[in-house]
Amino acid sequence: MPTLRHTTALALSLLAIAQGAAASSELRELALDIFSPLPSTTPAVTDNPITPEKIDLGKALFFDPRMSASGVFSCNSCHNLATGGDDNMSTSIGHGWQKGPRNSPTVLNSVFNDAQFWDGRAADLAEQAKGPVQAGVEMANTPENVIATLNSMPQYVEWFQESFPDEADPVTFDNFAKAIEAYEATLITPAPFDAWLNGDDAALSDIQLAGLDLFVESGCASCHGGINLGGEGYYPFGLVEKPGADVLPEGDKGRFAVTETAIDEYVFRAAPLRNIAVTAPYFHSGVVWDLETAVAIMAESQLGADLSGEDIGAITAFLGSLTGQMPEVSYPVLPAETSATPRPTGEVN
Amino acid sequence: MPTLRHTTALALSLLAIAQGAAASSELRELALDIFSPLPSTTPAVTDNPITPEKIDLGKALFFDPRMSASGVFSCNSCHNLATGGDDNMSTSIGHGWQKGPRNSPTVLNSVFNDAQFWDGRAADLAEQAKGPVQAGVEMANTPENVIATLNSMPQYVEWFQESFPDEADPVTFDNFAKAIEAYEATLITPAPFDAWLNGDDAALSDIQLAGLDLFVESGCASCHGGINLGGEGYYPFGLVEKPGADVLPEGDKGRFAVTETAIDEYVFRAAPLRNIAVTAPYFHSGVVWDLETAVAIMAESQLGADLSGEDIGAITAFLGSLTGQMPEVSYPVLPAETSATPRPTGEVN
Repeated sequence: MPTLRHTTALALSLLAIAQGAAASSELRELALDIFSPLPSTTPAVTDNPITPEKIDLGKALFFDPRMSASGVFSCNSCHNLATGGDDNMSTSIGHGWQKGPRNSPTVLNSVFNDAQFWDGRAADLAEQAKGPVQAGVEMANTPENVIATLNSMPQYVEWFQESFPDEADPVTFDNFAKAIEAYEATLITPAPFDAWLNGDDAALSDIQLAGLDLFVESGCASCHGGINLGGEGYYPFGLVEKPGADVLPEGDKGRFAVTETAIDEYVFRAAPLRNIAVTAPYFHSGVVWDLETAVAIMAESQLGADLSGEDIGAITAFLGSLTGQMPEVSYPVLPAETSATPRPTGEVN
Repeated sequence: MPTLRHTTALALSLLAIAQGAAASSELRELALDIFSPLPSTTPAVTDNPITPEKIDLGKALFFDPRMSASGVFSCNSCHNLATGGDDNMSTSIGHGWQKGPRNSPTVLNSVFNDAQFWDGRAADLAEQAKGPVQAGVEMANTPENVIATLNSMPQYVEWFQESFPDEADPVTFDNFAKAIEAYEATLITPAPFDAWLNGDDAALSDIQLAGLDLFVESGCASCHGGINLGGEGYYPFGLVEKPGADVLPEGDKGRFAVTETAIDEYVFRAAPLRNIAVTAPYFHSGVVWDLETAVAIMAESQLGADLSGEDIGAITAFLGSLTGQMPEVSYPVLPAETSATPRPTGEVN
């Protein structure tokens, strides 16, 4: 039979657990007002019904370096699924060894962003997919050459027919982009934070919970909310205090180039934060390699907050809970080129 | 009860089948003296016991672009498993947008070559793997930087420990190469020709059988024999008649650079022919994109034979039976870089 002392100790332990559970439950309630867990199914995308055939075609196109003029770069070159869906460089190296203007964002979970690119200039992933293929400093190709390349390989033509069965002439640049969008919509990475939002108290550590609390209370979540903890709205970089020109180069005025409105100077889409711990370097300029440093810069420039090292550590620990599980990707076997396939060229125009 | 006419027709059919089977069996016997089917298991390699841990590590290294100085190129860039284990270019584009000197050979089944590279300058795949990583026009890295990169990621260090459990300090450039060799040894592609060699009469079509017969009778098999139909010996390109300088550029003297012996001028390793139909362009110069043209050039320059279009078509059809089944490759999830990871640099020295 338990002694009174034992019973008291047990009661106190149960009370502490109950209080902890209550605090966790309160924090979860607050968090669910701001964030959403990833869905367990592939999301629908506008005007692009997703089918298994289209996903497979999109995967082939995503990994096919022959979609670039030189034959060197595929979508996967700068959005590498082996390394967090980005390329681990400040700014990407593209056609002719030219450097791109901005850091390559991760493709993972990008289907949940309200718009694509750092300045939101593409409304969706299909529109986005058409950009780098044609950009002179990236894949330097033309829609005509992409279509000629695809049409030269009977297997690709068949895959387009299976993916767009109601179309008489399915091998089009629009459908190329739609197939890639369909594949990218499957690139979803459920993380410990999702498990916690879904009710698993053990999914986050104490320091991660403290970091989440700070992330919300300090104001980070005002811009980095929603399903992707960002990717939803546009904000001036340097809302309170402009960071140095190394981090915010003067020449890149962000969303101003899209809207041509003075108020959009140095405005960027709030970066989505899923998998942020594995997608250094940070910011559109890609000059900051350390996540704690990035958090400190954000706190100062956007919130005017001078966070302690401990607080920055906790927020960074919380951000680590956004590193998700990659979907299993079986590497595609692509159609072989034929004598009709346009030859790759590394020439720079 | 069958009529006499029926019985005669049946007997004649059976006779034709028996004759066909006899011819096929005779050709198979001849073929098995010259060629060998791929084994059903991963081959052993010298001084490098192959374990599942080493294969997994090797796969990660094979796909990791951070093994190059710029972060742009992995082994898979020029030996792309999605496109026949090569890169579909005349010569590869590498660091600083420089062009490599020779066509990138397929990595598939390369474990069965007697030596590696067009001039056989590497005795095995481990030695080969060290070349492109350090070549200034390819990955432009140094062993020291590769090791620093690997040591900066705890997951890689753990994988090296698991792969080389008896070594105190397993993260070495030698072990990097051995792990890649172990992975590459698994890249074996059984083809219809193997099924036929193994006794399946239906695996080759009539024209492919005719092509095989021609391949042997015309003398192609004298250099292109063995398990890889080539990759075993060295021969002057232009044994009978030198091809034009476009196909055989004067500046590249082949194996002469390895042996410095006059007799080795313009001598190259006979190309292994597995998957040749999906690995255009052809020859060390990579200027011929059409397999029939390549066959015609070979017949003329090596055998002094002016084959008919029909014969070339049959040989090409036979070569198509060497296109094998790719092993299923699940794309790796690589360790994330840390603050200690050396930064990528695209600078050209």
